[in-house]
Formats: sequence, C-alpha cells, structure tokens
Amino acid sequence: MSMTNETGMKRPFTDGQDLLPGLSIDPVIFGFHEGQLKILLLRFRGMDAFALPGGFVHLSEDVDEAAARVLYERTGLREIYLDQFYTFGKRDRRDAGTQQTLLQGNGVELPNTHWLLQRFVSIGYYALIDFTKANPTPDPLSDSCGWHDLATLPPLIFDHTAMVYKALETLRKNLDDKLIGFALLPETFTMTDLQQLYETILGKPLQRTNFQRKILSLGILERLEKKMSGGAHKAPYLYRFISPATP
Amino acid sequence: MSMTNETGMKRPFTDGQDLLPGLSIDPVIFGFHEGQLKILLLRFRGMDAFALPGGFVHLSEDVDEAAARVLYERTGLREIYLDQFYTFGKRDRRDAGTQQTLLQGNGVELPNTHWLLQRFVSIGYYALIDFTKANPTPDPLSDSCGWHDLATLPPLIFDHTAMVYKALETLRKNLDDKLIGFALLPETFTMTDLQQLYETILGKPLQRTNFQRKILSLGILERLEKKMSGGAHKAPYLYRFISPATP
Repeated sequence: MSMTNETGMKRPFTDGQDLLPGLSIDPVIFGFHEGQLKILLLRFRGMDAFALPGGFVHLSEDVDEAAARVLYERTGLREIYLDQFYTFGKRDRRDAGTQQTLLQGNGVELPNTHWLLQRFVSIGYYALIDFTKANPTPDPLSDSCGWHDLATLPPLIFDHTAMVYKALETLRKNLDDKLIGFALLPETFTMTDLQQLYETILGKPLQRTNFQRKILSLGILERLEKKMSGGAHKAPYLYRFISPATP
Repeated sequence: MSMTNETGMKRPFTDGQDLLPGLSIDPVIFGFHEGQLKILLLRFRGMDAFALPGGFVHLSEDVDEAAARVLYERTGLREIYLDQFYTFGKRDRRDAGTQQTLLQGNGVELPNTHWLLQRFVSIGYYALIDFTKANPTPDPLSDSCGWHDLATLPPLIFDHTAMVYKALETLRKNLDDKLIGFALLPETFTMTDLQQLYETILGKPLQRTNFQRKILSLGILERLEKKMSGGAHKAPYLYRFISPATP
C-alpha cells in the first residue's frame, strides 16, 4: 500500500432524512501504476478488513450524480470515466457483526432501528483514473484511504470482494468494445505502457506484433515525438489517445 | 397486440412495511413470435400509456429472487433466462402527474406522504422466454397484460421506453458472448428460425452462408430429424441448442 492520507475524524452521520433509504453507492476505483492494476480502499478504525469507498444518495441527486460526488470526495477528481456495472441486492449482504465492530471501533453506538443498520442495496460503479492525479481522502469512519494491488487484495468487508471481481469482469469485457483502457493512462504513453496495461487487465501476455497491429489499425492513436531517454536512437515513440474517426 | 388476459381488480396495496423502501424491479420480458421481437406490457386502467410489468422487493427476498417472483406472477414461468442489466436512478424519473392519473383511474387517492408516491430507484432485469409458453397476467392496477411488437412500441410511462432500449442494447451485446438467443426459441427450430431471430435482434440482415458456418462452428447445435412439411425433399433440418462442449 502507498499514497495513504490520514485526517482527523469528522461528524460521522446525518440523521438519514436527506438520503434515499436503504441505498448505497460503492465505487470500484481502478488505477494503473508500475505495471499493477490498483484499486482504492478504505481501512476502518478498529478493523483489519478494508472497504470500497462508498457513500449514499441524497434526495436531491440523481444516482449517477451521487456516484460522481462520492468519487470526487475520495479522489479529488471530477470528469473521469465512471460507469455503473451491477447492483448488489442479496438480503444478507451486510452482516450485523461487521457493522457493529465497525461502529464500536469508532466509539459509536446505534440502536438497531437506526437507518444505517437497515438492509442496504448497493449500486456498483467502476471508475478509471490516471493514478498520478488522484488524491485519496479517508471518509469520517475510516483512518486511511489508499491504493492496493488487485493481485494481492486484502480481506474486504461484506460483499465487497465480489464487487471488485464483478467490476474487473466488466472492465475486461469493455476494454475492446468501449476502448476505456486509455482512461487509466497518463495523456501520453509508449506502446509498451499500453500493452502492459492490456496484459495486466486481461491477466495474460499478448504477442507484441499482433497487439501493435491491432491497436494501430483502430485509428485511435496519435503518434507524437520520441520519449527522451539515455540512448536516443532506441527511444520509443509516445502516443496519445484520440477519439475514433467517424467513417 | 395479442394474447391479452383480463381479470378483476385485486387488493392494490400493502402498507409497504414489508418492502424495501424506494426500490422497484422493472423486467423487460422479451419474446419472439412470427419474425417479431416482442415485449410484455401492462396497460393501466384509465390511461393510454403502457408500462413494464414491475414490482417491489420484499424484505425477506434477495433482489434477484424478487425479480424472479415478479416474472412468475406475470408470465407463469419459472427458471427462465433472467439477468439484471441496469439500475435507473434519475431523481425525476417518475413524474407525479402520471402517478396521480394512474391512481385516479383506479379510484384510489393517496396522501403525498404515501410510500408509493416517494422517489423510486428501479433495477432493470431482462428476461428471455419461449413465447409459446408464457401466460400473461395483469397486475392489480392494470386491466391488461400482453405482447407488443418492439418495432411498434406504444407510449410507455415514466422512463420505461429508455429501459426497453437499454435492455435491447444489452441483449444485442450478449447475443454472441453469452449465446442467450436460444432462450427465445422453442426447444427445436430450423436454421431459418435462428437466423431470423438474430436478424430481428440485431436489426439487420445477415448473409445466410456466413451465418450458418459461424453458428455451426460453435458446436452448440445438435441436428435432429427433418421438419415435416408438404414437400419432404425440401424439408429443413431441425436443431436443438446444446451447451458448448468444454475443450
């Protein structure tokens, strides 16, 4: 884990009256750094388990707007790739024991009738962000918010592990269809960066020549100057993603 | 429109205490008949507009279980292809005027604080059923439940038209990936039936030889006897869908 911010505790709860009852948003926030696919996780005070950096929906917000706000609150980023992928509605998806431990760890006691302890359905969103631009921020109940390698995911609360893998499945499926992988890269990148990203998401090696031919045939990359390096004659070209030309 | 059932009015409302607040299920139920893709719609008493045959989630049910129950209540069918495709959460997705008209048409008056008049988020499911087996059943507020051609969709209430097209988009996208089209056909079918189904869903003609080669190469069809017809020498083969062989 790296890039962890820590802040003091804020007021943890509203009275829930301005929120949609029983509905939460759980964003799976993907980043890519040094050849690893990463996701942003919170760690709650007093617990070993981690959690997706979720939130609730205000009555005054569209659900999509709530997801964008939650993401902004966690990462400081707006206008990044964000899409719904699945809604999680199992009756027993939040176990009471975990909830109580979580609250006790924060010195909070709530009656069983409290809105926060009712059944919640959660809408999963996945976000793709340029790792170098995100600024992780903990929420009031958690003491850290940071990036974790997807390859060595720690234990997560509730059904959050299933959420992460469902989000990854969607990311894989949409990689070609929607060309969304570029949202995980900085504005300029080398062909090696791009291939490494695809290989990491798909979890398998790709043949270099085929990959390059396929990607270049899509007409979505603009070739820029060469990347500066020690041996200039071997420097790779930098590329930038451009929207596909309309035929 | 065809295959409309009509029944008397039942008790329209519970007090909502046994339901998840603010959450509904709206199934887009696809059938295929005589070369047309069809969906199942309700018509509410006193309204010209139609609606998806939705329902609510009991506290005792997983959301998926609620979707299966709603489907069973409308079609009499269990164990059919049913999958979540999107959750609709715009703040103003249900307009108050339509709601009041709907209730007044049934002679029902509700205070503005009634649970049914609060904001609802709706989870969209799509179902694929063998048209010949469904037995459409109206709900307590509606006076008919029947099949409509997708090509000539009547006006729908709220955001239900957007739901239908989002479901169709998902159906198109999953047609090859998940081989789900067969759920819309009877157990046995001709290659012409199958091609017609694909052409209807995709909204474009397919080249016959290519289509057959591609489908047969998947190893998912079992060829049965020839279909009986007048000119036996021209009778087409019948096929049956089998699960893909594991390599």
